Amino acid sequence: MNIDMIRAAAERINGHARRTPILTSPFLDEIAGRQVFVKAECLQHTGSFKFRGAWSAVSKLSDNELKTGVIAFSSGNHAQGVSLAAREHGAPAVIVMPSDAPQVKIDNTRALGAEVILFDRATEDRDEIGARLAAERGLTLIKPFDDPLVIAGQGTAGLEIAQDMTALGITTADVAVCCGGGGLTSGIALALEADAPGLRVRPAEPEHFDDMTRSLVAGKIVRNERLSGSLMDAIITPQPGDITFPILKRLSGPGIVVTETEALRAVALAFERLRIVVEPGGAAALAAALFHPEEFEGDAVIAVATGGNVDAAVFMQALEASRA
Amino acid sequence: MNIDMIRAAAERINGHARRTPILTSPFLDEIAGRQVFVKAECLQHTGSFKFRGAWSAVSKLSDNELKTGVIAFSSGNHAQGVSLAAREHGAPAVIVMPSDAPQVKIDNTRALGAEVILFDRATEDRDEIGARLAAERGLTLIKPFDDPLVIAGQGTAGLEIAQDMTALGITTADVAVCCGGGGLTSGIALALEADAPGLRVRPAEPEHFDDMTRSLVAGKIVRNERLSGSLMDAIITPQPGDITFPILKRLSGPGIVVTETEALRAVALAFERLRIVVEPGGAAALAAALFHPEEFEGDAVIAVATGGNVDAAVFMQALEASRA
Repeated sequence: MNIDMIRAAAERINGHARRTPILTSPFLDEIAGRQVFVKAECLQHTGSFKFRGAWSAVSKLSDNELKTGVIAFSSGNHAQGVSLAAREHGAPAVIVMPSDAPQVKIDNTRALGAEVILFDRATEDRDEIGARLAAERGLTLIKPFDDPLVIAGQGTAGLEIAQDMTALGITTADVAVCCGGGGLTSGIALALEADAPGLRVRPAEPEHFDDMTRSLVAGKIVRNERLSGSLMDAIITPQPGDITFPILKRLSGPGIVVTETEALRAVALAFERLRIVVEPGGAAALAAALFHPEEFEGDAVIAVATGGNVDAAVFMQALEASRA
Repeated sequence: MNIDMIRAAAERINGHARRTPILTSPFLDEIAGRQVFVKAECLQHTGSFKFRGAWSAVSKLSDNELKTGVIAFSSGNHAQGVSLAAREHGAPAVIVMPSDAPQVKIDNTRALGAEVILFDRATEDRDEIGARLAAERGLTLIKPFDDPLVIAGQGTAGLEIAQDMTALGITTADVAVCCGGGGLTSGIALALEADAPGLRVRPAEPEHFDDMTRSLVAGKIVRNERLSGSLMDAIITPQPGDITFPILKRLSGPGIVVTETEALRAVALAFERLRIVVEPGGAAALAAALFHPEEFEGDAVIAVATGGNVDAAVFMQALEASRA
């Protein structure tokens, strides 16, 4: 896993993934007490950075592999990223989703051309189903984060951050990244190491689901005690990846843990001040930048808004909370 | 008023206004029955295209004029655009607003450094107050649309549309623009005439406030019968401008009239499919593209999402309506 793989991924996604903008607001600067730059990956195709990694992985498949198709496990952003990347390569996609996933996510994944296979979380084993399907049909598994091609794809966001911050003359700053398994965070870390070594990643995680933060403290991989029960569902994973963790152990600053209330406030401020739609899990980094200023140093902070696939009901909850 | 003024404005705003992205979604293409490209001016500084025209005008003032300051009448997007452009030039800004304007808009305008002067719509005359203030203090009036420098600034969005569409290989299409007094629409029309002559502007207007649409039919300026009572308040003006109308008479296609319900549906779809926050008046062009497909020709349509300054309550109304 190295910078050359990220540069190669950048060539493959060029013209396919969107180069997302950096957004700012004087109102956010005032809250944070320093300049805040938001990398709006919620504006990426399918509404999250996941399209980068999916495209990076799918675009490396052989013609035969594309013809046979790909498979992914996901109820959320990875599902949509893989579905669209596969469709644009003419490859069939099978997405294995829990049967209690929101109907809108199932519908959207199907609308992007994927075959959705539902399983019962209580009685069936996801990995067993996936392994059987992959074997029967010869499908290629696209992992959500712990895969070099996926990490390379996510790292292309880091190349863009390095380029844009350098152009703005900002060479020393923390880059807060909403962190699940660490695919995006580690990819960005490698890109910054090469192209903007004064910028350093800081994983932002939900309270009670801070496996990466605690793993960085412990110096080894530790797990979350539970795996559901947060509005920041998009960035909840059992534990850091075997590939992503060593990269972050070497390159990352300490993690920052945010509460649900802080994430919802960040969602509302992104609505009001940046006019972008961010899901709670995609707002963790912005929440860290705005509401934990004492955990950062320097005159500027970059926050990656990783995704914007949020139900209207949850979004309204965030707006209501900010009016109270 | 000509293309050279727009190119000169583009040089002045370069590095100050944001180059806003073109966004797409396969779900929107399906609704419209053709490719839909959305120019996201809601991501512009202060949340609307108005910053372009304000910067264009303020940046042409002499040092003395800047020192004395500027004045504008607006309760909305123009107020914020002028306030920020003035502040970044070190110029005082006086904004004359009706005393019944939403408190949040008054607060935001003050937070951008402007002096807000409130007047009573029922008993006081806005123009009289403005003229007196301008005379007493020597302030320069920044008009909202019927001014060559302002039109030139708004036209820079048209240069970007021409460049981006040419890069995508799209040389023939309609460009729907949310239209109030016609500053943005006429500026874009001039830019397209020069740089992408196969693209043609189409003003999008609210039902009952379709002065530009009717003026284009009549071949002369006609007025709206009333001036309030629409959620699309951002694009309601008494009548087309004396400078903007002749430009549009020469270059524009027919106007498209949308209902409030259509605008709210477009707001909800921009939330769900593009992850951007658009105000109802800023969604008129997208509503036209999505819900009036029979009024367009060709395989592609461009819609300018002109602004995103919307109260949480109105935004929630749009999301609620789309769930019903």
